[in-house]
Amino acid sequence: MADVAEAAGVAVSTVSRALRGRPGVSSAQREQILRVADELSYSVSASASRLAGGRTGAVGVLVPRIDGWFHSTAVAGLQERLHEHGLDLVLYRLQGREERTGFFTRRAFRHRVDALVVVGTTLTPDEEELLAEAGLPVVGISTRPSGRPFADVDDRAGAAGATRHLTNLGHERIAILRSTTLLGTHGAVSHDRYAGFCGAMAERGLDVPEAYVVSAPWGLEGGAQAMAELLSAATPPTAVFAESDEVAIGALRTLRRSNVEVGRTMSVIGFDDHQLAELLDLSTVAQPVHEQGRTGGDLVVEALEHGRVAEPERVLPTRLVVRGTSAGH
Amino acid sequence: MADVAEAAGVAVSTVSRALRGRPGVSSAQREQILRVADELSYSVSASASRLAGGRTGAVGVLVPRIDGWFHSTAVAGLQERLHEHGLDLVLYRLQGREERTGFFTRRAFRHRVDALVVVGTTLTPDEEELLAEAGLPVVGISTRPSGRPFADVDDRAGAAGATRHLTNLGHERIAILRSTTLLGTHGAVSHDRYAGFCGAMAERGLDVPEAYVVSAPWGLEGGAQAMAELLSAATPPTAVFAESDEVAIGALRTLRRSNVEVGRTMSVIGFDDHQLAELLDLSTVAQPVHEQGRTGGDLVVEALEHGRVAEPERVLPTRLVVRGTSAGH
Repeated sequence: MADVAEAAGVAVSTVSRALRGRPGVSSAQREQILRVADELSYSVSASASRLAGGRTGAVGVLVPRIDGWFHSTAVAGLQERLHEHGLDLVLYRLQGREERTGFFTRRAFRHRVDALVVVGTTLTPDEEELLAEAGLPVVGISTRPSGRPFADVDDRAGAAGATRHLTNLGHERIAILRSTTLLGTHGAVSHDRYAGFCGAMAERGLDVPEAYVVSAPWGLEGGAQAMAELLSAATPPTAVFAESDEVAIGALRTLRRSNVEVGRTMSVIGFDDHQLAELLDLSTVAQPVHEQGRTGGDLVVEALEHGRVAEPERVLPTRLVVRGTSAGH
Repeated sequence: MADVAEAAGVAVSTVSRALRGRPGVSSAQREQILRVADELSYSVSASASRLAGGRTGAVGVLVPRIDGWFHSTAVAGLQERLHEHGLDLVLYRLQGREERTGFFTRRAFRHRVDALVVVGTTLTPDEEELLAEAGLPVVGISTRPSGRPFADVDDRAGAAGATRHLTNLGHERIAILRSTTLLGTHGAVSHDRYAGFCGAMAERGLDVPEAYVVSAPWGLEGGAQAMAELLSAATPPTAVFAESDEVAIGALRTLRRSNVEVGRTMSVIGFDDHQLAELLDLSTVAQPVHEQGRTGGDLVVEALEHGRVAEPERVLPTRLVVRGTSAGH
């Protein structure tokens, strides 16, 4: 900002006020300062350009989708931190295998951003390798790219807690609703929650028959389908653990339509504490999503400022929230 | 891509395959091609650089928040179209008056993007003026910046339809739940929906007493508070039109907790057809949100390709969806 002030022949504080649109600067003066600033193409914020890696003053954010509660909430938290540091956010959508491969191979993002944050999608070993070739700092949010800093929760422990809650209520026939990604696969989060579920069932010597493990595409519709499938089993379960609240909410819809009394004939617990879980009286495992986004922001800012991160593994706590959809059997 | 092929001494098709990570290219050859591409800093996609205004190959998207159903869904639709044209998306958050003023005054986005899309927030005349000085194409989604192309719905007509649905059911004491923005003001959408409500009430010669017009901050909590306020009125209404489904959903929560039978003692209708409206059996006015996003994308692409837009005003249809929360009185 100093060079703008010098070229414009005004005080730095005046430039600062003018650029921040604050009072105390005549419009003529503001116009002149903006002209000078433009000539010097003074663009990204002072704090961004102060960052060691602040070449572009922007951070790339990789999401499989932005129109979902989890991803949009995490990105909002991340954006809050980036904004505080004057960093812009470039949103990249990663859908479908070819789109992903092209993105990591072409590496066009290198001319656009100083670092990448991967939100809620699991990178394949090939993708991680291609990303390594790009030589940019990479941070994971709700995903753990190997050897990279991340902000996440302990999905395995959270899922085990939800399962123990059901077994403690006396349930023995417990099913799990698993979700597949846009690629039709199970991400690491799904694997970890499934492992936590199986571990907690094994602790009590309870089997998990194949018919009680149902996979469907992530989301309301998937949950609704999966629950219908479970209800059509020879011996339906008495309780269901859904890998996410949106899946659980879909399951609740099927149960309501089937006149199955939720909390009595069938207990349901989800994972997330979605903003609507309370409204629907859904028991769940709460995870701090906005906070994971903010923490991911801290990590990428630290990586850009210091070239390294002191505490690269940030595992935030989950919390069991017992509501009306889970009850004794 | 041709220059990369020439410099690398290979066929354009080979460069294409290499950059898209397709098979049929040896890893050594891919590495060489990528090196050449980097030297020529071949970055933004061919189609993006073909665009007349394609200076940066990126479009800036202005949202008051990304962690809400409407904004994240509209941005997803917009991103889909931008992606098809090889345009990157830079996400700008506009929160609070000073943040907004600074954004429009500093105009740092000019060095980052070729055009701006404003999503679901009303620009002040000052903001529009500052934006005009920047000299970039501007498109509105669910907002109509003066003299700019936009994709929107007819909020007034949609709200009038919802209100007529209630009066046709025999309701006469009808309240409206209005929402304020993060700035504590009513946006244009709120004004239009309120005007549509008042117009439809006037058609039937029905008053709208002050006590039946309740404003609260947008969202679930605001809707819950506003409904509580209405229930504490000397003569509560028999029906409520909520400016958005999220507000209606908050109102439903208060009604459930107050043991007011929804659809009998109190009818409720929202606006949006939020993904959870069906689950909650909420009557509403459906608007095509993802489609508005895609249409906004069409408009900005056309503006960049041709410097002008043939049909700048795209008003998409709304549709009354009658469910269980609205019934006769």
